[in-house]
Amino acid sequence: MVDALLYERRNYPLLIVISGPSGVGKDTIARLVIESRAEAFSFVVTATTRPPRPDEVDGQDYIFLSSDQFAEMIENNELLEYAIVYNDYKGIPKQQIRDALASGRDVIMRVDVQGAATIRKLIPNAITIFLTTNSEEELVDRLRERKSETSEGLNLRIATARQEMKRIHEFDYWIVNAEEQQETAVHQILSIITAAHCRINQRPIVL
Amino acid sequence: MVDALLYERRNYPLLIVISGPSGVGKDTIARLVIESRAEAFSFVVTATTRPPRPDEVDGQDYIFLSSDQFAEMIENNELLEYAIVYNDYKGIPKQQIRDALASGRDVIMRVDVQGAATIRKLIPNAITIFLTTNSEEELVDRLRERKSETSEGLNLRIATARQEMKRIHEFDYWIVNAEEQQETAVHQILSIITAAHCRINQRPIVL
Repeated sequence: MVDALLYERRNYPLLIVISGPSGVGKDTIARLVIESRAEAFSFVVTATTRPPRPDEVDGQDYIFLSSDQFAEMIENNELLEYAIVYNDYKGIPKQQIRDALASGRDVIMRVDVQGAATIRKLIPNAITIFLTTNSEEELVDRLRERKSETSEGLNLRIATARQEMKRIHEFDYWIVNAEEQQETAVHQILSIITAAHCRINQRPIVL
Repeated sequence: MVDALLYERRNYPLLIVISGPSGVGKDTIARLVIESRAEAFSFVVTATTRPPRPDEVDGQDYIFLSSDQFAEMIENNELLEYAIVYNDYKGIPKQQIRDALASGRDVIMRVDVQGAATIRKLIPNAITIFLTTNSEEELVDRLRERKSETSEGLNLRIATARQEMKRIHEFDYWIVNAEEQQETAVHQILSIITAAHCRINQRPIVL
């Protein structure tokens, strides 16, 4: 008799990291993916010391913290990883991920390239997705359109984006977020998630 | 300046092996996957010495060969793999795969469990999918409904299916082809294919 377990589907929540250079559209794509199947996903919000942009909501887009609050989280070892990004601190509260995984839903995180590399080391079975554009020109254009940047800030981001593009090979998947083709990018990310749930060797996320 | 190659998507044709125990629905699912996006897929037809079933078409469902013809292909090293399956020979003509890959389209093969294991050894970057049912009862029922089986043949297939289920861990993916839910199985296979094209480390199939 065949072991009944062979017919029992083990399905653990996934940890999906959406990353890529600044300006590539991580926030938008992560939001569209979650909205497409809101009942299936939990979103992990990053903590940051940078001031909110006009349209950003605390606790939803980011957890906006003072430097002192952020320092306290570091000291209490409450962050999965943190880094200085453009003179501001960014970090991922461990409790956010634990709560999200405990819900049984797949967990989606939007993390900069530096942070994604760290997560990959700490959680090897995280699924890491690198968002990119069709060309460097397209990326630079998008950074330029972002009104919040000073000219100096812009140049820094372009230089950083160039460096970050070189780390693409540290990731599992590569998605082009082309102008006017966000639907394709979202469809591809949903396919990656569906495929991951069909893998034979699935292991739970541990952190 | 970032290397322009970073923005150039390398996309090689995939080799997708749909396998699973006898009676699980490999033929139907492979056909539905191909029909869903006929322009994107090539299908590799297996050669066999078994007689065609009433509704089967030579060159389309299988390449039906005499024992002598099959022996000649073996001698000329024209088969990727071959095996005796229920007293008949089955094998995969290499030229079929080469032609299919040369078309630039993804190649879909329907292969028994034994054959799939061999292909996995010869072509490690093939994508291997194991089709299964929700329970052993469902599988036995389907084998019983297949009118072409004698009682003895049926018992042999059930025993073989039990052994084959134990090899599921040699595969990459696991799809449940449940009664009345073929659409889900097809959607999952298409997702696996889409995801594979988004992988960062893609290599061409060599054989």
